[in-house]
Amino acid sequence: MARKSRRSYVVGVDLGGTKILTALINKKGEIVAQAKQATEAEMGPERVIARIAESVERVLRRADVVPERVLAIGVGAPGPLNPETGVILNAPNLPGWVDMPLAERLRDKTGLPVFVENDVNAGTYGEFKLGAGRDVSDLVGIFVGTGIGGGLILGGQLRSGFRHVAAEVGHMIIVADGPRCGCGACGCLEAVASRTAITRDLVAAIKAGRTSILTELAGDKLDDLTSGVLAEAVQRGDALTLEMLGWAQHYLGLAVASIVNLIDPEMVILGGGVVEALGEYFLAPVRETAFANLIAKHDLQRVKIVAAKLGDQAGVLGAAMLAVARVGKRK
Amino acid sequence: MARKSRRSYVVGVDLGGTKILTALINKKGEIVAQAKQATEAEMGPERVIARIAESVERVLRRADVVPERVLAIGVGAPGPLNPETGVILNAPNLPGWVDMPLAERLRDKTGLPVFVENDVNAGTYGEFKLGAGRDVSDLVGIFVGTGIGGGLILGGQLRSGFRHVAAEVGHMIIVADGPRCGCGACGCLEAVASRTAITRDLVAAIKAGRTSILTELAGDKLDDLTSGVLAEAVQRGDALTLEMLGWAQHYLGLAVASIVNLIDPEMVILGGGVVEALGEYFLAPVRETAFANLIAKHDLQRVKIVAAKLGDQAGVLGAAMLAVARVGKRK
Repeated sequence: MARKSRRSYVVGVDLGGTKILTALINKKGEIVAQAKQATEAEMGPERVIARIAESVERVLRRADVVPERVLAIGVGAPGPLNPETGVILNAPNLPGWVDMPLAERLRDKTGLPVFVENDVNAGTYGEFKLGAGRDVSDLVGIFVGTGIGGGLILGGQLRSGFRHVAAEVGHMIIVADGPRCGCGACGCLEAVASRTAITRDLVAAIKAGRTSILTELAGDKLDDLTSGVLAEAVQRGDALTLEMLGWAQHYLGLAVASIVNLIDPEMVILGGGVVEALGEYFLAPVRETAFANLIAKHDLQRVKIVAAKLGDQAGVLGAAMLAVARVGKRK
Repeated sequence: MARKSRRSYVVGVDLGGTKILTALINKKGEIVAQAKQATEAEMGPERVIARIAESVERVLRRADVVPERVLAIGVGAPGPLNPETGVILNAPNLPGWVDMPLAERLRDKTGLPVFVENDVNAGTYGEFKLGAGRDVSDLVGIFVGTGIGGGLILGGQLRSGFRHVAAEVGHMIIVADGPRCGCGACGCLEAVASRTAITRDLVAAIKAGRTSILTELAGDKLDDLTSGVLAEAVQRGDALTLEMLGWAQHYLGLAVASIVNLIDPEMVILGGGVVEALGEYFLAPVRETAFANLIAKHDLQRVKIVAAKLGDQAGVLGAAMLAVARVGKRK
């Protein structure tokens, strides 16, 4: 009993294709130390796993906490993966990661229980436990960046899905036979409302002769617009940017309506770089379109469509909180 | 204890706008007596509730079972409704039904516990307990008729939703800014793949000069094609009917892909008049399109996309089985 109560910390890791974020979190869900380092994915899985283990050591050292006081490590990782076994089936952004038993390898290196979950699921769980969704038990997370990912919390539980691939919000088909998506299908939400889609349409319009302040703001990086540059173009009232963002907002609103019509959650949380950079300006029209397209008009005001609160920290916090939930179940 | 075991029957009621189906069901989930009668909705709610109570008496009399041997009555009713209170908020097909406490009224008339659920949810629950979904705990039901309705079973439980309006599969938006739906939105699945949508497009094509055997088969009822007439036109190889059904199958396939990408269930069950009349001929292309548009290609063969098995009896069976589940919880 005395021993158990000593384990009052948990580590969260957000494993991305370019960087690893690691945080030591206390019982209150506060980050007490964190580390950020390059993934060095090109060096292969063993190197990446060693770097994760190093980053765990680093946050412990920074907070002057011994490993014996850590309950578990939670890792948010790119999928598809199996959260029950902690095996990553394959990860397009991480060369060589095929059927990689990440949980087992990291457990062997650290001596701590390790739990692995899809990174966007982890981020959604973070918002549920410590962010915008703290007071609800039923929510859908939608994160808009270069792609669009999501997570489902139903009845206070993360829904992983039968094949552990639930919540692929970005691959709901919204524009049948529309623009080709990276996944091969046509008209997926990601193909019409991600930053990649917005950029594609902006570049095409500019090439077709439309003028935009973006040519000045982005210089030769027009093909790789950041959310910050888009936000600046909006602030300057750039008509073309407003038009293209308007389409993304329209399609996101229709997707939110579809999701609410299907799942009827209490809350939809929108996050990711585009939403963070533009805030309520971006969110308000999405909410309006969603409400206009809901089938059940009663109790409309009870459906909350809100911005994420945790930003980049959603992943490490969620991965850590999931580890706490799962180590509890295992006992 | 002796008394409890005597209550080995349950009554299921499927309340529709034109007819009331009622069945007495034994412990094995078998129908031992049934009744079918006109709803007489135009006579108002009190009359309809009296007719439901009569139909309950009738099935008991037919099976020579006394009310003391009945555990509960389950009613599948048009929504929106509150399954916790048994109050129907409003029902467009039932004039005068606004905030109608159906469970309470029917309990007063019969002396039995009454549970009310959305009719399509009840049908899905019937398929889950006694039909195509018997062996799974995680499924989505899609029923294609004049409209398109659905139901969600997640982790062996019916998902009613936060506002009790979940599973409105027909109002997922598949063709953004597409044909206007009865609900007011554009491009809902129901607006492009229901029998109503198929009929609309067939009539428009015929008016525009396309030829079809339907003008012969349906006579002056071209605006109100039955699933049986559509099936006959298919059997006779009618090119226009095949073309329009092909579009409905395409959109249904995309909707199934969207749903599986979002929820990742073990099974999708397709039912309703159109699916029943055309069977595997209708289902195979829907399945093919769905598989082609799933984002997670691994374990594809584990996702079952199958036809409903219970036909018209899904509703009464599901309503009855839900009543069994709920009376158990209440104790």
